[in-house]
Amino acid sequence: MTALTPGATIGILGTGQLGRMLATAAAKLGFRVVTFGPENDPPAARVADDHVVGAYEDEAALKTFAERIDVATYEFENIPATTVTTLIGMGVPVRPDEKVLAVCQDRLAEKKFLQSEGFATAPFVKIDQARDLETALEQVGGQGILKTRRFGYDGKGQVRIKTGDDQDAAFQACGTTSSILEGLVDFEMEISQVAARSLEGQFAFYDLPKNTHRDGILRTSEIPAPNATEMRELVQQRTAHLLETLNYVGVLTIEFFVSAKDGLVANEIAPRVHNSGHWTVEACLTSQFEQHIRAVAGWPLGDPYRHSDATMINLIGEDAAEWDSYARKDQTAVTLYGKKDMRAGRKMGHVVSIGPRK
Amino acid sequence: MTALTPGATIGILGTGQLGRMLATAAAKLGFRVVTFGPENDPPAARVADDHVVGAYEDEAALKTFAERIDVATYEFENIPATTVTTLIGMGVPVRPDEKVLAVCQDRLAEKKFLQSEGFATAPFVKIDQARDLETALEQVGGQGILKTRRFGYDGKGQVRIKTGDDQDAAFQACGTTSSILEGLVDFEMEISQVAARSLEGQFAFYDLPKNTHRDGILRTSEIPAPNATEMRELVQQRTAHLLETLNYVGVLTIEFFVSAKDGLVANEIAPRVHNSGHWTVEACLTSQFEQHIRAVAGWPLGDPYRHSDATMINLIGEDAAEWDSYARKDQTAVTLYGKKDMRAGRKMGHVVSIGPRK
Repeated sequence: MTALTPGATIGILGTGQLGRMLATAAAKLGFRVVTFGPENDPPAARVADDHVVGAYEDEAALKTFAERIDVATYEFENIPATTVTTLIGMGVPVRPDEKVLAVCQDRLAEKKFLQSEGFATAPFVKIDQARDLETALEQVGGQGILKTRRFGYDGKGQVRIKTGDDQDAAFQACGTTSSILEGLVDFEMEISQVAARSLEGQFAFYDLPKNTHRDGILRTSEIPAPNATEMRELVQQRTAHLLETLNYVGVLTIEFFVSAKDGLVANEIAPRVHNSGHWTVEACLTSQFEQHIRAVAGWPLGDPYRHSDATMINLIGEDAAEWDSYARKDQTAVTLYGKKDMRAGRKMGHVVSIGPRK
Repeated sequence: MTALTPGATIGILGTGQLGRMLATAAAKLGFRVVTFGPENDPPAARVADDHVVGAYEDEAALKTFAERIDVATYEFENIPATTVTTLIGMGVPVRPDEKVLAVCQDRLAEKKFLQSEGFATAPFVKIDQARDLETALEQVGGQGILKTRRFGYDGKGQVRIKTGDDQDAAFQACGTTSSILEGLVDFEMEISQVAARSLEGQFAFYDLPKNTHRDGILRTSEIPAPNATEMRELVQQRTAHLLETLNYVGVLTIEFFVSAKDGLVANEIAPRVHNSGHWTVEACLTSQFEQHIRAVAGWPLGDPYRHSDATMINLIGEDAAEWDSYARKDQTAVTLYGKKDMRAGRKMGHVVSIGPRK
C-alpha cells in the first residue's frame, strides 16, 4: 500500500485525449509516463516520456511496457480484460483492475450490477436474435433502444426501435450480435457523477454536471446541474458503495437520467475519467485527471474543491475549425487534442467557460 | 502575422521546469513541442514530442531543431543571443527575439533600460576592477550588493559589501569579472508584474503577487499583494510601454521593491515566464505558460481572469521530500518538476493553496 514516489513511471493503456490529459496530469506530480497502444504517434504519446506500439493482445509488446512502468492504468473500458490480467501476471499493478471491465464491457452485466447496487435503471431485456424483439418491446413499453452488449460508445452500435418496425433490420443494424433492448426513460435531464476512490479507501466526489447529448455524443456539461445539491447525498452514498463493492481504485463515472416519474435512473458506468468531467481542469483545484493519477499512484486524493461555475462544450468534427473564435472569448479556455483528421463525429477538443459560483 | 494552427510545432530552448510547464501548456492547445538543450532526459523533454540534444552554440544541432519546428521560444535569458540569431537566420521565428536578451543579460544595460522606461531603480555603479569599489560604495550610500553583470541567477554571482570590507575578496567572490555595485533599497515588500504582449500588440497583465526571498531564491508569492489595486495602473502602464519599446512577444516579468521612501523601484526583468507567476496555473483561467505559448504562436492572448486568491511556496532542495504532507493538504495543489537529485538550493517543485477572492 505504499505510494509511488515522484520519479516513478505510470503506464497508460490507450492513447487518445483521455490518455493525453492523464499523462499531463501525471507529469505535474513528477511522474514519468509510458503510453501503450496500436498507433504510431497518437495524441497521448506526444506528451509522454515514451510510447510502446503494440496490439492489446501482443504479449511481447506488453512485456516491454511492463518492464518500463511501476503501475498501469487505462483510458477506456474496451481494452481486453486479458491485457490487464497479463500485466498483473507480469508483476505490474493495474488500477483499476479487471473486475470492473467485466461489468462495463457488457451492457447486460452493467445494468444488473447497477440494480444490485440500489440504482434504478431503464427496463431492459436480453436480445440474442431478431425474433426476441417482439416480446421484448412489449416488456419495455412498446419502444426502446437496441444496443450491442459489447464495444459500443458515443452512440455507435445503437438503434431506436418500436413495435411494428422491421426487427430483422434493427438487429442487423446493431451488428447481429448479443444485444439488449432498453426501454426509454422519460427524463428531464441527464447528469453524471465523477467520483474517485484511493488505494486507502478514501473517496472524492465532483459536483454534478447537467449533460446534453447530440447524436449520442456528449455535447455540453453545465456545472452545477439544477438541484445538484438535493441529489448529491443520495448519488454519493450509492456511488461510494458501488466503488467499495468493486474495490475500485481511480476515477469512475456514472451517468444518470433525472426523471420526474422514475427519479434518478442510472444509465452507464465508465471506469475512467469522463468527458463530462473535463470542466474539472478549469473549475476545480484537482482535476479528474490528477485525481485518477493520484489514486493509481497510491497517493491521497486531491481536494476536488470547485472554485467556479462552468460550462463545457465539446468540439466535434468541424467544430474544431472554430478554435480561433473560441480562443478570443472571455473567461473561456480551449483544449485541443492534437488529432490529425477533423472527421465527422470525432471529438477534437473542448472549451470551458467559467465564472464565479452562484 | 498569421497564427499557428493547432498541430504546428513549437520549439523550446531550455529544458528545466519552465520549459516543462510551457510544453504542457502548448500541448493543451493542440501543439507539438520539440525541446532543445545540452542534457539527455531533462524534465521538459519528458513531456515533449521530441528532444534535440546539443550545446546552444552547436549549429548542426540547431539546424536539426530548426527543421522540426515552426517557431521557437526560450525558457531562460542566459542562452547566447547568437543561438537566437542563428535560428532566425535558418528561417525560424524566435519569440521573444534577441533584442531583450541584450538588455537582460547585462545588469548594467538592464538598469539603464529600466530607467529610460521611467522606472526608478536602486543606485548602481559599474565595477571593472576591485579598486573601483571604494568610490562606488560612497556613491551608493556606504553599502550595497556587488553583482556580476552577466549570467547570475537565484542569488549566484552576488556578494554583500560595505565600506571597510575586503574589496579584493568581494571582487574575487563575484568571479573577478565585469560587475555592478547596487545600493540597498529600504523596502517594505517585493512584488512582480507578470505581463504578456501578443504578436498583434495586445496586452495581458496578471495581478501583482507579494514575493518573499530566502538566500536569494524566491520562497513564496501571495496573491494579491497588499495594496495591489493601488499600484496596478502605474505598473501596467510602464510595463506596457517597456513591452512596446522592445516590440516584445510573449510573457515578461518585472520584479519591484515597494519602498515607503522611494516608491516603486524596479529590480530585474525576466524575459520569460517566472517563478512568481506559477500560481496562475491554479488561480487563473489562463496560466502564464499558456499565455506565453499563445503569444509565441501568434494567437490572441487568453483571459488572465483570476478566480481565486493564492499562496505559492517553492519546494527547494530537501523541501521536496515533504511532497506527501503537501499532497494531503486541503485546497492545495502540488507540482513536482521531475528532477532527479534533491540538491540544496535547487528548485524541485512548488505548492499552491487557493481560496475564494477576498
